[in-house]
Amino acid sequence: MDVSLSLVLDVAGTAVFALSGALLAVRKDLDIVGVIVLSVAAGLGGGIIRDVLLGATPPAALENELYLLIAAGAGLLGFFFHPRIGRLNAGIRLFDALGLGFFATSGTLLSLDAGLSPVPVLLLGTVSGVGGGVVRDILGAEIPLVLRQDIYALAALLGSAACVSIVRLGYSAGVAALVGVSTTFVIRMLALKFDWHAPRPRQ
Amino acid sequence: MDVSLSLVLDVAGTAVFALSGALLAVRKDLDIVGVIVLSVAAGLGGGIIRDVLLGATPPAALENELYLLIAAGAGLLGFFFHPRIGRLNAGIRLFDALGLGFFATSGTLLSLDAGLSPVPVLLLGTVSGVGGGVVRDILGAEIPLVLRQDIYALAALLGSAACVSIVRLGYSAGVAALVGVSTTFVIRMLALKFDWHAPRPRQ
Amino acid sequence: MDVSLSLVLDVAGTAVFALSGALLAVRKDLDIVGVIVLSVAAGLGGGIIRDVLLGATPPAALENELYLLIAAGAGLLGFFFHPRIGRLNAGIRLFDALGLGFFATSGTLLSLDAGLSPVPVLLLGTVSGVGGGVVRDILGAEIPLVLRQDIYALAALLGSAACVSIVRLGYSAGVAALVGVSTTFVIRMLALKFDWHAPRPRQ
Repeated sequence: MDVSLSLVLDVAGTAVFALSGALLAVRKDLDIVGVIVLSVAAGLGGGIIRDVLLGATPPAALENELYLLIAAGAGLLGFFFHPRIGRLNAGIRLFDALGLGFFATSGTLLSLDAGLSPVPVLLLGTVSGVGGGVVRDILGAEIPLVLRQDIYALAALLGSAACVSIVRLGYSAGVAALVGVSTTFVIRMLALKFDWHAPRPRQ
Repeated sequence: MDVSLSLVLDVAGTAVFALSGALLAVRKDLDIVGVIVLSVAAGLGGGIIRDVLLGATPPAALENELYLLIAAGAGLLGFFFHPRIGRLNAGIRLFDALGLGFFATSGTLLSLDAGLSPVPVLLLGTVSGVGGGVVRDILGAEIPLVLRQDIYALAALLGSAACVSIVRLGYSAGVAALVGVSTTFVIRMLALKFDWHAPRPRQ
Repeated sequence: MDVSLSLVLDVAGTAVFALSGALLAVRKDLDIVGVIVLSVAAGLGGGIIRDVLLGATPPAALENELYLLIAAGAGLLGFFFHPRIGRLNAGIRLFDALGLGFFATSGTLLSLDAGLSPVPVLLLGTVSGVGGGVVRDILGAEIPLVLRQDIYALAALLGSAACVSIVRLGYSAGVAALVGVSTTFVIRMLALKFDWHAPRPRQ
């Protein structure tokens, strides 16, 4: 993956996860500092977890000030121009689904570059995808979406798998990124729209 | 510690912590994906925290796909063959006590190999032991056992100390591991059975 | 920053955060082991997060047993000599404000030494400052102060910025540390005393 593709995925993922954090903070009636803190934690969390796990420290999100500025900027946008309260949850889920796709894909491509074998690549892709949302929800004292929503980690995993397959077929990282992000996002939104559920345990 | 001993401890610890995660997920009525996510997080969490703290990245649990497969497999086992609901908590505590012992011991032996001095070895052993359970409980929105249960971190600490003592006396890492795992497990189960408590603060 | 200054900041920060953890544990009616666990987690958490993010592993708090002993000692002090229950929260906030200042400043100076650029230095300073309190509150099942309190991350950020400015003006790290710690502490205590609030979102 060349540097510019990596940057595009990370910047886009940071911005949308930060927006989801801002909307959650608004719903929780936090003040402007709380909004920015939750936006930055959600926007930077997934990438920082990914980089720490890959041993790439200091994490890109700390070395390059662009990420912080984008996350804080997105937080301010969310603070000043948030939707009406009734629609906050829809906004959180939309931005969250996009961020899931961007970070699952960037985690997948970076793990492939680091020479990990297939199953760990999928695991790291999935963890990168869900990381920002988990940080956001734990800080916001919510049960993480990854546990509450049936098709969430699965959407990240399938996007990661699609991304790996496209790379294996010989296509460029750019094409793989496009397919990975779209796969995760579409599956997640369809699961929300049609209320898809995975099986539950026998009680 | 030779590689095969390290692998045995990690694989055993991953399997039992994953089972404890699966049973918690069943108790929380999560669907099959949630069950697998919580199993994997519980099974891999302690080892990943240990490796990140020791600077051994990417963590073994990410580089070697065995761990993920074992954790996911244990999650599926828990999903399909869990005990009746009334006995879920007993199962969680049994598997949790075993995992506490396996990871406290592997963290202790790896820290000794890394040349840390005694107190940090005990600390890292204890943190490795309790890590998986803390990740499991935070994700599952439970107050971590490490805070709710009087003799929990203490059991990991005593197992770690027993393990260090045996190594100091000149015995092999294998013997030390056996003593360490047993010490933690037995103390933890006795504390549960006889309802041992540590002193509480004056109010 | 020379080693002795770094040590002074870390030791002081560890002691006060550990005290805040001990008082929270007393308020939650935890037993003596829970008190020590929460004290150690609060005292060591911020520094460990900082060192992992900077890639300085194993973290100082694990390599040097001094930190653990100080945190556990402060925990025992808190357990045996805590204030009356009605005053626990005041104690938590006082020690927390001090720890915030010490760790924000040490994170800032270490990041400057690591050659990070200005915005990441401020971010890492802020994260180091708030880290111990976040670990303490998440383990204690409280919504983190960093989200509940308007002027919290902001106090760490302003202390970090003051510290960077003083270094830029050519003063020694010792002077910068003094200014950084005081700035954070004074702003935080004033915000508590006069009940300062940041703006909230339009609902």
